[in-house]
Amino acid sequence: MQTAKIKVGIVGGTGYTGVELLRLLALHPQAELAVITSRGEAGLPVADMFSSLRGYIDQAFTDPAQADLNACDVVFFATPNGIAMQQAPALLDKGVRVVDLAADFRIQDIAVWEKWYGMTHACPDLVAQAVYGLPELNREQIRNARLVANPGCYPTSVQLGFMPLLEAGVVDETALIADAKSGVSGAGRKTETQFLFAEAGDNFKAYGVAGHRHLPEISQGLTDMAGKKVGLTFVPHLTPLIRGIHATLYARLTKEVDLQALFEQRYQNEYFVDVLPQGAHPETRSVRGSNQCRIAVHRPQGGDTVVVLSVIDNLVKGAAGQAVQNMNIMFGFAENMGLELVPLLP
Amino acid sequence: MQTAKIKVGIVGGTGYTGVELLRLLALHPQAELAVITSRGEAGLPVADMFSSLRGYIDQAFTDPAQADLNACDVVFFATPNGIAMQQAPALLDKGVRVVDLAADFRIQDIAVWEKWYGMTHACPDLVAQAVYGLPELNREQIRNARLVANPGCYPTSVQLGFMPLLEAGVVDETALIADAKSGVSGAGRKTETQFLFAEAGDNFKAYGVAGHRHLPEISQGLTDMAGKKVGLTFVPHLTPLIRGIHATLYARLTKEVDLQALFEQRYQNEYFVDVLPQGAHPETRSVRGSNQCRIAVHRPQGGDTVVVLSVIDNLVKGAAGQAVQNMNIMFGFAENMGLELVPLLP
Amino acid sequence: MQTAKIKVGIVGGTGYTGVELLRLLALHPQAELAVITSRGEAGLPVADMFSSLRGYIDQAFTDPAQADLNACDVVFFATPNGIAMQQAPALLDKGVRVVDLAADFRIQDIAVWEKWYGMTHACPDLVAQAVYGLPELNREQIRNARLVANPGCYPTSVQLGFMPLLEAGVVDETALIADAKSGVSGAGRKTETQFLFAEAGDNFKAYGVAGHRHLPEISQGLTDMAGKKVGLTFVPHLTPLIRGIHATLYARLTKEVDLQALFEQRYQNEYFVDVLPQGAHPETRSVRGSNQCRIAVHRPQGGDTVVVLSVIDNLVKGAAGQAVQNMNIMFGFAENMGLELVPLLP
Amino acid sequence: MQTAKIKVGIVGGTGYTGVELLRLLALHPQAELAVITSRGEAGLPVADMFSSLRGYIDQAFTDPAQADLNACDVVFFATPNGIAMQQAPALLDKGVRVVDLAADFRIQDIAVWEKWYGMTHACPDLVAQAVYGLPELNREQIRNARLVANPGCYPTSVQLGFMPLLEAGVVDETALIADAKSGVSGAGRKTETQFLFAEAGDNFKAYGVAGHRHLPEISQGLTDMAGKKVGLTFVPHLTPLIRGIHATLYARLTKEVDLQALFEQRYQNEYFVDVLPQGAHPETRSVRGSNQCRIAVHRPQGGDTVVVLSVIDNLVKGAAGQAVQNMNIMFGFAENMGLELVPLLP
Repeated sequence: MQTAKIKVGIVGGTGYTGVELLRLLALHPQAELAVITSRGEAGLPVADMFSSLRGYIDQAFTDPAQADLNACDVVFFATPNGIAMQQAPALLDKGVRVVDLAADFRIQDIAVWEKWYGMTHACPDLVAQAVYGLPELNREQIRNARLVANPGCYPTSVQLGFMPLLEAGVVDETALIADAKSGVSGAGRKTETQFLFAEAGDNFKAYGVAGHRHLPEISQGLTDMAGKKVGLTFVPHLTPLIRGIHATLYARLTKEVDLQALFEQRYQNEYFVDVLPQGAHPETRSVRGSNQCRIAVHRPQGGDTVVVLSVIDNLVKGAAGQAVQNMNIMFGFAENMGLELVPLLP
Repeated sequence: MQTAKIKVGIVGGTGYTGVELLRLLALHPQAELAVITSRGEAGLPVADMFSSLRGYIDQAFTDPAQADLNACDVVFFATPNGIAMQQAPALLDKGVRVVDLAADFRIQDIAVWEKWYGMTHACPDLVAQAVYGLPELNREQIRNARLVANPGCYPTSVQLGFMPLLEAGVVDETALIADAKSGVSGAGRKTETQFLFAEAGDNFKAYGVAGHRHLPEISQGLTDMAGKKVGLTFVPHLTPLIRGIHATLYARLTKEVDLQALFEQRYQNEYFVDVLPQGAHPETRSVRGSNQCRIAVHRPQGGDTVVVLSVIDNLVKGAAGQAVQNMNIMFGFAENMGLELVPLLP
Repeated sequence: MQTAKIKVGIVGGTGYTGVELLRLLALHPQAELAVITSRGEAGLPVADMFSSLRGYIDQAFTDPAQADLNACDVVFFATPNGIAMQQAPALLDKGVRVVDLAADFRIQDIAVWEKWYGMTHACPDLVAQAVYGLPELNREQIRNARLVANPGCYPTSVQLGFMPLLEAGVVDETALIADAKSGVSGAGRKTETQFLFAEAGDNFKAYGVAGHRHLPEISQGLTDMAGKKVGLTFVPHLTPLIRGIHATLYARLTKEVDLQALFEQRYQNEYFVDVLPQGAHPETRSVRGSNQCRIAVHRPQGGDTVVVLSVIDNLVKGAAGQAVQNMNIMFGFAENMGLELVPLLP
Repeated sequence: MQTAKIKVGIVGGTGYTGVELLRLLALHPQAELAVITSRGEAGLPVADMFSSLRGYIDQAFTDPAQADLNACDVVFFATPNGIAMQQAPALLDKGVRVVDLAADFRIQDIAVWEKWYGMTHACPDLVAQAVYGLPELNREQIRNARLVANPGCYPTSVQLGFMPLLEAGVVDETALIADAKSGVSGAGRKTETQFLFAEAGDNFKAYGVAGHRHLPEISQGLTDMAGKKVGLTFVPHLTPLIRGIHATLYARLTKEVDLQALFEQRYQNEYFVDVLPQGAHPETRSVRGSNQCRIAVHRPQGGDTVVVLSVIDNLVKGAAGQAVQNMNIMFGFAENMGLELVPLLP
């Protein structure tokens, strides 16, 4: 027997996480897209903006003032930072569950959040209730969460890569290095000069070495895993690919351990984390368009440096896919429902 | 009630049309992958070659000599030209239906085929029985076909673009021009220098202007539609994208006609051909990973030149997707079964 | 004996034609960069914006109000359309020669210009005096010109491709087709969504089929060559490369002619037009970073359709390089001075 | 007064380092290309293979058996590993100076070389005489060298990045990390599947984590600088750009030091090493086509991890450009002669 579908709302559907949510929800057997809002594009059929959705999404964008989000079972915020914290409280009061794909509820320490995001938090009380939506870490809490803070793209790839090592306590947690490379869609659909094809194409650069907003988010997660404060150097890079994050992680081993077995055991029951065979090198295209994270662990020349390679699609496992995975958990659906996506290769 | 799945065999699954067939069949509700052969890679798990298939395809490549293709309901040939014509006769004799994704059965005039493909045809009799697998043109014949010649990628995009004009007899069929641009995957997984990233990247060129194998295939199809011999200039180009064909078609109008209405009516019942609104410009990424063809028709400055813009994903509607569409028709499945693929954008 | 260098000014140096002019002028033996203006970036060292110029350009951008352009021998306008026509008259009055890389002086018919560019022309009288700076067509007039209208990128590639055919009167000039493909830098350094890496990358589309501003410019030039009004269908496309234009041109032959000889003779004394051997296909990277135009001419299947393939680097022969070529002619320097640029391949 | 040009020979000019040498030598005022050999392409005009060289290089490839390399002043080997060691001894005996762009003479420890390169060294004696051609390290020895081992691309970027730190002894040399990213041309013009556009495009991966041939070369250089054995973890990555290497280097500071001043002082007299201002992030395109190395040094959050960002064009400073720089030093020319190359941006 087919149960009734849940009603889903999306706030802010004109960016890349928005169109990706629509791609996934269009075919989700248990979700019905009830409303999608956009202040700037109200009235415009969604498929007029994203022609890829022609035939799959019939709705138009609704003006936020007119949108009846209260009638939804769950609302996704695919908005810039600072929006969800304004609107989530009222929705939660009405019993609507909320998944924020932005950063408003990711960091428990309000002062840290306010420093990195440069604004005053509108509802610090709710932050304490929010569950950090990394299912591989917090599955049980997500199940009953009213408010889920969907992780950032870099944080997802880095935390999944370090998790087995930190939980097992086999590396020096004070000197972790995450050298991460992101495709350009990670910056969203923002029209900044540096993201133009003629600027970002055939070009590679680091950025934010002095400090990136994902640093405190990652540090918080790693600290939870380690059970003590970690020291992390995080260097993000912009690479000329559309989708994909490749995190290369370095740590110093402090105990002898079978690294391959450690990773395989930690993730043996995880549908969306795939530990590759010894010696492998995951490539970003092997997860393109899918919710998979693929990981390989190396110990070059048998030394005491462990190298973890972790790849995700930043728009799927790093954003919209993980949000749907969280929704599935929250509503008791199969965790992979609507997420059976064979990666597009080539 | 769920009927038994059909058994599917793939001959030659190590190229791009092979991996794309696997991507589609992995989730097809009525098809079961029975066997996939490769002479060179026998014994290798398919997912070791294409890591995108990890978790979806468990089989290994089978040596052709050991493969029991006769037990299949349908066999796809995703092989170089000249292979299917060797093996199809025996399979057909056993009652196995065959879809050839290569060119062996596409051209009815054997002499023409032998000239362009540089070999003697092994089974000219079968060519006459083969149905050219463009569903929008030959749906009824495909339904009962034992042997389907799956169209080439350029021919699909060009024929769907010209079809309404030629069937309606509104253009000068003696002076057609098809300026077509293909992504690099159209060349297959061949290791030729010109297809290296450092050669094909940030580069654009025409090729085969003096003559390309798809020219006689397209001419044959257009001649069928027009009911008389057409004159076609076909110029293919290599463009630095991975997937996608954009065909820009030119013809001289000989009758006044509402072009937009003509195209919309011709394709109103076609699931996989999408006529865009007046004035639109389809982009290749709007069909990336999907079986859709999107078309727009223009009449610049109200002159007598009609310009048709037609885009497909060369590996889907231009190869594996169309092959599955043909299979669906042949076996009485819904034509879009397993082909509900929302394009990947961005 | 070394003569004194000429003093060069650049108005608007923050776009791609600006930085390209700087790249070329930095090493030009007879040109001295006197001043480069920018309203928005006044005071900023040029090399802080374009790190490629570190060590080659020491100047900072000057506020236009403070810039002493009158002391220059020549001023290049690398500005948006509509700027040069405001400022050129005063400079010309002071005896400064002007090269406009934008479109203000390209079209002789003021009404046509005003229609396509959507503004009232500020100095229609000067348009009549301006020389269209295509050296292969107008070398002698350029020599003595006070005001040169540097051609657009598409117009350069298309006109050089059609010129031998139209001058010789061997094609039907009423039905010309130019199917042109441009790299993304052709749009300038504008931050529009469609030019983002995640939008333009791995994507191909036509645009402006109903009408593009380069259409009247090209038609004017072709009409001059043919000596009678031409009919042209012009379809531009956006292709995922940074630099480069590939024009594929179609015309119907009306006379028997040795096409290869025709092209070779027409361009035998042209330093920057390279006619490739029979059967060749020029590629855009073969001119990357250089002022070369490479052309091949084909007659597929010996029919009456001639196909011309013409490639340039849109920022060099299509903009800044041609501007320097014009400057060289205007000041009596060797035409290739500062333009000995071996293309960057790969 | 112009002195006579030196005669230059190139052995193996059909790869990317070969065509890049030709690009640079074509305009070098003191070098004359005397002969360029290729076994496979003997007789073919060089510009028929690389159309970018049309008009600049008139020669054809010469069969090695017929080539009179003994008449050259200097011979560059742009060959696969293992060729130069066969041919260099005879040339050196005739007084010809040799620059090997491959790896035959880079590693002083013959056993190490033989292990990593999988062959027996043909002339171990010469290895001891060879000078490692990193001018910023060995300028004086290069001046009088008969045989120069031109450094690898990764080794150039990594060594220049670590050099100031190791020479000053301010970091823990036992735990260095080099996370390096290379464009695809770094693999040469080899037709391996993984380097196809449809494989390497829109894709990012690490490779050779277990061990890469450049590891012993880098370790040897770093050990020289540090004056004691270093411990290095080196992880190379393949990134979808044509040219460019970005090395991100990590080390633990052991002494307080003004890092910015340290780097600026170390390189203040180096023409081809550009230390960027504090806080900058060099991008690969800022050196595209040029012999420049640009470096920035960071100390994130004021911790004890120093992060160095170092970019080069792998084919210029990482290969052919550095070879010409070495030639200039060997023959007493200005070190930047023929290397005044403004990077191509965009």
